[in-house]
Amino acid sequence: MGRTSDAREKILAAARSLIELRGYSALGVAEICKAAGVPKGSFYYFFESKEALALAVIDEHWAAQERAWRQVLAEEVEPLHRLRRLFEVTQAAQLAGQQSCGTVSGCLFGNLTLELSNQTESIRARLQEIFEAQAGLIEAVIGEARARGDVTVADAREAARSVVAQLEGQVLFAKLYNDTQRLGAMWTNCLALLGARTFAEAPIGL
Amino acid sequence: MGRTSDAREKILAAARSLIELRGYSALGVAEICKAAGVPKGSFYYFFESKEALALAVIDEHWAAQERAWRQVLAEEVEPLHRLRRLFEVTQAAQLAGQQSCGTVSGCLFGNLTLELSNQTESIRARLQEIFEAQAGLIEAVIGEARARGDVTVADAREAARSVVAQLEGQVLFAKLYNDTQRLGAMWTNCLALLGARTFAEAPIGL
Repeated sequence: MGRTSDAREKILAAARSLIELRGYSALGVAEICKAAGVPKGSFYYFFESKEALALAVIDEHWAAQERAWRQVLAEEVEPLHRLRRLFEVTQAAQLAGQQSCGTVSGCLFGNLTLELSNQTESIRARLQEIFEAQAGLIEAVIGEARARGDVTVADAREAARSVVAQLEGQVLFAKLYNDTQRLGAMWTNCLALLGARTFAEAPIGL
Repeated sequence: MGRTSDAREKILAAARSLIELRGYSALGVAEICKAAGVPKGSFYYFFESKEALALAVIDEHWAAQERAWRQVLAEEVEPLHRLRRLFEVTQAAQLAGQQSCGTVSGCLFGNLTLELSNQTESIRARLQEIFEAQAGLIEAVIGEARARGDVTVADAREAARSVVAQLEGQVLFAKLYNDTQRLGAMWTNCLALLGARTFAEAPIGL
């Protein structure tokens, strides 16, 4: 049992790396098994299909990211400060990825959205759930900030979606230019989108 | 010569549709030729490789989009009004795509950025040029709006990049949810990002 469980983890880790480097469509099961160092028979013992593997990679990545997000958003500081920490954690994660594999790999969920959402309904549905969950976590902080009068935004859910969209767009450009500095604009833009009190003193580009 | 030129157009059109539906990596030259209804020999007469074809698809799409953008941005109305028209044209294009193929296909450049920018340097370089050109067109309008006192943003280039990032992020969600209504937030968000004078009366979600 120790060995088989190990093989599942190896397949997941190899698939995650290969998907980040080259996307999902171009991958074959044989290649994933070779990178994982496990026999091809093991693959179908753990995963019904390549699609089932992709869902497992997505779930594992979201479980880790959700833990990290919840931890940051539970810190005992002002709501906007927590939100800022979320952007810092995002930028740090992209920088760590770049340092380990040479290129900014972007957001796994964003990458798979643009590559797969029109082809695989199960993946589309899972990615929708994850982005809704992200928006929900951010909405809660925006609600707190609004209650304190820190932001003027009217619809906290809609604003949270726009913040996530801006984040995805900036991560896309960080990937395109292989430059995490691009992510520096995220926080100022977030303040602008929320109609933050501090925004009047710090518009974009200052 | 009439026939060969026709074959090139057919290959380009088939490749464009297939890339929008299923991405680039999963496509083979044989499949593209079959969809185009041309013999495989024709392919290599016109294109050195699948990568050369992708570059031609990108160039053709940008040529058309740049024409459309320049036309909208040259209209004789106030700068922010022209910018708004750009978002309307974007939303209309996504809606037309959805009506013709059943799903929102998103932005060809954004899709290829997330799928390919870490694998194919020639494509990465071309996409960088296109996004810089988009930012340049938007920067010019922001500059005009700033000169009139319509927006308070300090760095027009940086602001233009953020507007494009927000647009790409919203188009990503329109694709994920197969819903062009998602694009409705783009304009309000753009005003917020630019610190537009009118923003105080119309924050997100109102």
